[in-house]
Amino acid sequence: MDNKTNNLSHKSIRLFTNNTLERHLLIKIDGEDYHYLKNVMRISSGDELFLFNGIEGEWKSKVVQITRKYIKLEILHKNREQINYTNIECFFSPLNNNRHNYIIEKLTELGILSFTPVLTSYCNIRKFNQSKAFLRGKEAAEQCGLLQVPNVNEMIKFNELLKQEFKNKILIFFDEESPLKNPIEIINSLKGKKISFLIGPEGGFSDIERASILELNNVVRLSLGSRILRADTAAIVSASIIQFTFGDI
Amino acid sequence: MDNKTNNLSHKSIRLFTNNTLERHLLIKIDGEDYHYLKNVMRISSGDELFLFNGIEGEWKSKVVQITRKYIKLEILHKNREQINYTNIECFFSPLNNNRHNYIIEKLTELGILSFTPVLTSYCNIRKFNQSKAFLRGKEAAEQCGLLQVPNVNEMIKFNELLKQEFKNKILIFFDEESPLKNPIEIINSLKGKKISFLIGPEGGFSDIERASILELNNVVRLSLGSRILRADTAAIVSASIIQFTFGDI
Repeated sequence: MDNKTNNLSHKSIRLFTNNTLERHLLIKIDGEDYHYLKNVMRISSGDELFLFNGIEGEWKSKVVQITRKYIKLEILHKNREQINYTNIECFFSPLNNNRHNYIIEKLTELGILSFTPVLTSYCNIRKFNQSKAFLRGKEAAEQCGLLQVPNVNEMIKFNELLKQEFKNKILIFFDEESPLKNPIEIINSLKGKKISFLIGPEGGFSDIERASILELNNVVRLSLGSRILRADTAAIVSASIIQFTFGDI
Repeated sequence: MDNKTNNLSHKSIRLFTNNTLERHLLIKIDGEDYHYLKNVMRISSGDELFLFNGIEGEWKSKVVQITRKYIKLEILHKNREQINYTNIECFFSPLNNNRHNYIIEKLTELGILSFTPVLTSYCNIRKFNQSKAFLRGKEAAEQCGLLQVPNVNEMIKFNELLKQEFKNKILIFFDEESPLKNPIEIINSLKGKKISFLIGPEGGFSDIERASILELNNVVRLSLGSRILRADTAAIVSASIIQFTFGDI
């Protein structure tokens, strides 16, 4: 399936950086990325790798120095122009055993670029490690050839979700109590709109929460079918259906 | 999202059994299931749980005895009639770190009931733990409310896949080198047909393998888009698209 992944991870390493990318610039890689390049990928002087910063496209670079603290790269030339992706925002509930990181990884592969954890009544996870989740998304973006890394926002409480402005966008609410309808047909009718979607916690939403969501403006309530899907499965299924229906493939 | 999962796993335990299910029968649960009921679910005498055997529907039963080796259940009454699901067969390549078990778990939730691992040239996993994979599917079927557990077949070599009879069914081949087409539209046109689908290994198919697949009869070649998906993501996305397009939700 993913021959390309293989090529990318073993032959062409890709790295997200906050640096400006410009021909002949020299940049230093330290911290986690230094460890990854040196100890995991066993990079050597002269090796080439790709860099992207979410703004200026993808650039080829060459290792010019490896010290005990950093790796120095020289930027050679631009390899791909920047792509600006459709921003589909995902609201989700944190899951047991950090399984929400799995959601971030898989949904990044599927092109979702904004994640906001929402604390609901039946959610038994109260802490969310934002930087760990960001790293999971960054790594997925690097591996799957994206030219942007996803935003992982701070956790918000359910009431703050209700205060969100859905005036200019649609919130797709995948609700297990929604009557069965063909989701593909309905999502098809939303083409051209700004889309966000909401995935509930393991324990589901409370009746009060469900009612509050349905009272919001611009909410589309959809069913994921008669099957009982775990929250992480539901997230991947939702993102697949939205992306494939929108034809953003 | 999965309020129902919660109910099922904490309030209504479901268990697959090979026993005949009939009113007033007494049956013994031992082995792994005994351990699960006693030590994980901490079941007590008088507790009720659901049983299904893939043939005779779902039955309510009551714990009548708990010994140090087994739990005895009395079958009370039928709760749901047997459902016979559409059999969509998944061929996949074994993945590193047993990540194929994740494919089996998620695809079971999505209603796929037959799994056959295929050994290909670029696949670096040569052993496949069939019973572990079966247990993963059984557990998913128990948790997601299915009335059947999936078959997990023995691993076959790529050449045996080619000998498979696709005369009476379609093989959907998700091929990263396929030109971009709208997969939903094409799958839609296959309604009413018997479907199987093939997910490649991490390293992709070799050129010879790809050519041999495309030479088979009744193969539909589809793209999962321009994104680079890992093999496990590709599997879930494929199953979602097939199930939702077929409307078997």
